[in-house]
Amino acid sequence: MSQVIAAAADLNAPPVTKTLADFVSTHPSQGWSAEVEHEAHRTFLNWLGCAIGAAQHESVTSSLAAVQEFQPAPQASILGRKERVDMGGAALINGISSHTFDFDDTHLKTVIHPAGPVASAILALGEHINTNGRQIIDAMVLGIDVECRVGNAMYPDHYHRGWHITGSTGMLGSAAACARILGLDTHKTMMALGIAASQPIGMREQFGTMTKPFHPGGAARAGQMSALLAKHGFTASLRALEAGRGYMQTVSTKNDWSEIDRDLGKSFEISLNTYKPFACGIVIHPAIDACAQLRAQGVKADEVERIELRVHPLVLELTGKKTPKTGLEGKFSVYHGCAMGLIFGQAGESEYADDIVNRPDVVALRAKVNATTDSDISEASVDVKAILKNGKEVHVFVKNAIGSVENPMSDTNLEQKFTSLAEPIIGKQKTAQLISALWNLGKAADLKQIIQLSTPN
Amino acid sequence: MSQVIAAAADLNAPPVTKTLADFVSTHPSQGWSAEVEHEAHRTFLNWLGCAIGAAQHESVTSSLAAVQEFQPAPQASILGRKERVDMGGAALINGISSHTFDFDDTHLKTVIHPAGPVASAILALGEHINTNGRQIIDAMVLGIDVECRVGNAMYPDHYHRGWHITGSTGMLGSAAACARILGLDTHKTMMALGIAASQPIGMREQFGTMTKPFHPGGAARAGQMSALLAKHGFTASLRALEAGRGYMQTVSTKNDWSEIDRDLGKSFEISLNTYKPFACGIVIHPAIDACAQLRAQGVKADEVERIELRVHPLVLELTGKKTPKTGLEGKFSVYHGCAMGLIFGQAGESEYADDIVNRPDVVALRAKVNATTDSDISEASVDVKAILKNGKEVHVFVKNAIGSVENPMSDTNLEQKFTSLAEPIIGKQKTAQLISALWNLGKAADLKQIIQLSTPN
Repeated sequence: MSQVIAAAADLNAPPVTKTLADFVSTHPSQGWSAEVEHEAHRTFLNWLGCAIGAAQHESVTSSLAAVQEFQPAPQASILGRKERVDMGGAALINGISSHTFDFDDTHLKTVIHPAGPVASAILALGEHINTNGRQIIDAMVLGIDVECRVGNAMYPDHYHRGWHITGSTGMLGSAAACARILGLDTHKTMMALGIAASQPIGMREQFGTMTKPFHPGGAARAGQMSALLAKHGFTASLRALEAGRGYMQTVSTKNDWSEIDRDLGKSFEISLNTYKPFACGIVIHPAIDACAQLRAQGVKADEVERIELRVHPLVLELTGKKTPKTGLEGKFSVYHGCAMGLIFGQAGESEYADDIVNRPDVVALRAKVNATTDSDISEASVDVKAILKNGKEVHVFVKNAIGSVENPMSDTNLEQKFTSLAEPIIGKQKTAQLISALWNLGKAADLKQIIQLSTPN
Repeated sequence: MSQVIAAAADLNAPPVTKTLADFVSTHPSQGWSAEVEHEAHRTFLNWLGCAIGAAQHESVTSSLAAVQEFQPAPQASILGRKERVDMGGAALINGISSHTFDFDDTHLKTVIHPAGPVASAILALGEHINTNGRQIIDAMVLGIDVECRVGNAMYPDHYHRGWHITGSTGMLGSAAACARILGLDTHKTMMALGIAASQPIGMREQFGTMTKPFHPGGAARAGQMSALLAKHGFTASLRALEAGRGYMQTVSTKNDWSEIDRDLGKSFEISLNTYKPFACGIVIHPAIDACAQLRAQGVKADEVERIELRVHPLVLELTGKKTPKTGLEGKFSVYHGCAMGLIFGQAGESEYADDIVNRPDVVALRAKVNATTDSDISEASVDVKAILKNGKEVHVFVKNAIGSVENPMSDTNLEQKFTSLAEPIIGKQKTAQLISALWNLGKAADLKQIIQLSTPN
């Protein structure tokens, strides 16, 4: 058996670990276009809003209680809360909160949620060691590039095997970004990536539980620790990512090495980042968008006989829950998504409250949705037909849902989303000031204002 | 692609998560034979000696420096050192030190080193929350049973794929043991195992670097944190271990579910634990033993023309380094192991010093060793022939090396090994007192004496 696998392993893989470490440690500050720079600010703003918004969720309260058992030093802030914990605990908890509503950013090529593992790690580290905003933006762009390039190389096999790719590549993004913040040289950055490579986190079976948002949080913390270990001389394999029994070949049968260095330092994966208008898994978005369009066309829930949905098989595989009982389960139900779109025209966090999921008219409409799969339809698209009680049919085809790369949310959309998340936690005034500060993060002399505004009075 | 994998997945797996959690949370204290109870004390003693012995190694100094960056509260002790850190940091560092010399225990059926992830987690937790010795022994027996049973189910596929099985099952042992120490009920123990299931640690490519001992340390810490999260209400999938996209099916193509509950609570995997007489990977032990037997038969290094070694293919796959340059590399060289056996008749940590590995007579003898592989020979055996310059041949066949289940180290052997490791760090008097205290750990009212004796004056 061992010989068979050894023979199948690619022992001539290119030096992925070195290539990425070299890039992270030597790429110039702001060495990219104004568009990339702006996208980085959009990514950070969206991530921070999601984290603040979930600050009172039980996933945060519960993980904070566990972190408090370690009597942590008050090095870094929990976003949207008054407590401070050590920077590892803050990386963990902010990573958890930012993914708790399933409302964070998505790199659609890989379904990685890129910011959670990276931004959570560097904001906590940066607050403690007092970096400026430029260092944060630089580290985030580079860290996201690392995790998404590795994801590109392994997707889809890695994901299909069962890995929640956000946590199982995110520790590399976190390690890379923290290594950059710490100013590690290429060799030590290789060590940081190598130590992190032994710690992929997360299986898809956890979807629908608090362990799903634990994945980016755990990845943030693991990568941050890996960079700190490397700083102090801890060693790892120089080929930890690419070797026959290294990380990539152990966790994925597909490894397209060309994804690692194609246009490295010229094109940036953060350019492909997207932000969710709806507080659920990205694969449901076309269906919600389509049903919101039905609503805009005048279709009313009580006139509907049935709704016929045609989707890519992955949609039902990930979100096929017919009868969700809680808000969290609702996020894994394309049927509930359709009901939200048609009844409310939106699907923010408030549409995923437990009482909404169990409201009789919602339950009734959900039962009228039939979904069929069709591999010829893209994961980004949906075909929806509403058959009304009067015999009329209304048809909507969505090629790219709002929030996709092709049909992105505007800056104003993002600010509105941020406001809806942050205002209930930090209030109107701080929310407005914070938005303005975040658009200027790259020029901030330190992180004090951002931190102060991100925590309630 | 996704459909193919989903079809291959076993969606009817038995309730592994529940079965193991039920066992861990309800099995009676000391609910096993006197032999199992004694083996638990041997396991703990051997583990503690290895951890103390490596206390000044750079893997410990370096990881301690990283942990200090978090300004940890002094909750728990670093074995063999004066520093105290938080219980998570102590679990990590003691797990690292206990595996640094590659001298710790081995469950030969799976090549798991069982104590590192489990004992490191519970001693740190137990010191902080002030448990007694009985709780430690109970938790260790149960935790080791969990990790080794999961290992039995997945071995060898999981290992051949590239996972360092100690870290990639150890987080479950740690979570189980910490859940037991915390007195979690069955449901919360399921949550602890579930959270841990998302955090397998370690690839074999890291062998020969500090990240190898990081694997049990990281697993100890991950499992401990998982139990604390579960205590505070954090949730995970109820089928996190066994589901189609759960941990076991994601990280292994082979899953023999019957290994989970066969004689569960009646036979204990710790009974199969073994302790190394030699400070290197277990697969080299038969070769060292055989060469030490050649020496005992009067064969001298300078009389040797060449040594012909016949070994199982795995031996060269894992330890085929022809020309190691450092002590650490020497541990992955069956050639160096043979030289140690013939020149010194032993292979303790001092035989893996850098200067020994590079000593001219050692280098010369190493070059005379030829190894061929033969899948008909067991991994536990070796066939060695010394061809002398005078034409004479001396033949030794080792069926089971000293330290195997069939040919175990005696309690006295274990005490001698412990002494050789601990005396240079904590001194003669404390070492003798500690050995005596450790044989009585199951009756200790608290852990204070063990901790006090395990740290230098």
